[in-house]
Amino acid sequence: MRISELSRRSGVPTATIKFYLREGLMPPGRATSATQAEYDESHLRRLRLVRALIGARGLSVSAAKEIVGSLSEVEGDTYELLGLVFGVWPGAGGGTDTGAGQGAKADGDADSSANAGQDAEVDALIAELGWDVTEFSPARKTVTRTLNTLRGLGIAYDWRALLPYARLAERTAALDLDQIEGPEDPLEKAERAVQLTFLLEPALLALRRLAQESEAAARYRGPSDRP
Amino acid sequence: MRISELSRRSGVPTATIKFYLREGLMPPGRATSATQAEYDESHLRRLRLVRALIGARGLSVSAAKEIVGSLSEVEGDTYELLGLVFGVWPGAGGGTDTGAGQGAKADGDADSSANAGQDAEVDALIAELGWDVTEFSPARKTVTRTLNTLRGLGIAYDWRALLPYARLAERTAALDLDQIEGPEDPLEKAERAVQLTFLLEPALLALRRLAQESEAAARYRGPSDRP
Repeated sequence: MRISELSRRSGVPTATIKFYLREGLMPPGRATSATQAEYDESHLRRLRLVRALIGARGLSVSAAKEIVGSLSEVEGDTYELLGLVFGVWPGAGGGTDTGAGQGAKADGDADSSANAGQDAEVDALIAELGWDVTEFSPARKTVTRTLNTLRGLGIAYDWRALLPYARLAERTAALDLDQIEGPEDPLEKAERAVQLTFLLEPALLALRRLAQESEAAARYRGPSDRP
Repeated sequence: MRISELSRRSGVPTATIKFYLREGLMPPGRATSATQAEYDESHLRRLRLVRALIGARGLSVSAAKEIVGSLSEVEGDTYELLGLVFGVWPGAGGGTDTGAGQGAKADGDADSSANAGQDAEVDALIAELGWDVTEFSPARKTVTRTLNTLRGLGIAYDWRALLPYARLAERTAALDLDQIEGPEDPLEKAERAVQLTFLLEPALLALRRLAQESEAAARYRGPSDRP
């Protein structure tokens, strides 16, 4: 397909696609003349992945480039692939915080992925759960920061209070991984993993809000209440 | 206690407390001289709630004022109280999106709480779940937007795919509400609800990430993989 068709099918403007080509985020098309090139389905998939990394995952162009560059090395290894995409390996954009919403203020801690052993409570939580996670995951820092924030507000809260939530997170993660079992193509798998992890986040939090409202109605609504 | 002690115990600067007093977000203290006033535990609780509304919930000062003003009217009614705090009633800061993280770009839809009937998929989801939620919740819009975003990326995804996630959200919400059963004081209950809803969000997403990593290790890690 021509670049215009690639643009139409991906929803990415032609100028942006040209920028990605120049930056090496996508392999060049097959030249059909001095000024035109043909692109195929693999370009479309790569383009979607790049958009997911930059848009949904919030990576810089250079961090996205590093990841797509590494993907070819770990193609056959889903564990390594997912580690790259989720940012749990050092050096591949892992500094991006999970930073969802208002709770995680921008506090410039670019060191978030290099704090092994500093998060004693998270270590305790993970040990209790028997989870198999690296020391590099930026998510560790996020948990630590939340616990500190709650305690700063005078709430007695420690990692044990998170245990039942973590058990539910386990089941959520199993649903997530079920949905990336499908695609055999590693790029497609990576793309799906980014999309499901990052794009679903607001919806998962919104479902919690709706469920809270429904649960509150069940527990507390009296006959005189609206609606 | 003096205002300095109130500041120390709440962690809120004296100048900010004075601003809240001027704005009517807190009732005045008991005057002990022309320039001094005494504050008590109720002031401390109110101050913490205001901070939670403005800080964690991300409300404007005027929206926070509207909520704390309404709280006294619904003091004995936990359902109404939680509705106010969660923003599911129109007119009480309900326009605040759940907008967690990168997935929900700022697109200026201040109309988010006035779209009853526009979210057919969310309606279907809620009907299937048997949830009891108002048409005003801004969380409805967030779910609709996520589904549209995923489809925009070419992923076949509809509300049915969210059902198992919603079932887990139900159990998460039950945990949330268990934790606000404790306090009898309505201000304290409201404060706890804001804190647990909004401040826990980044930690819940982080737990999902850690669980994904662990689940990926269980499913995919081969003998040659790190660590």
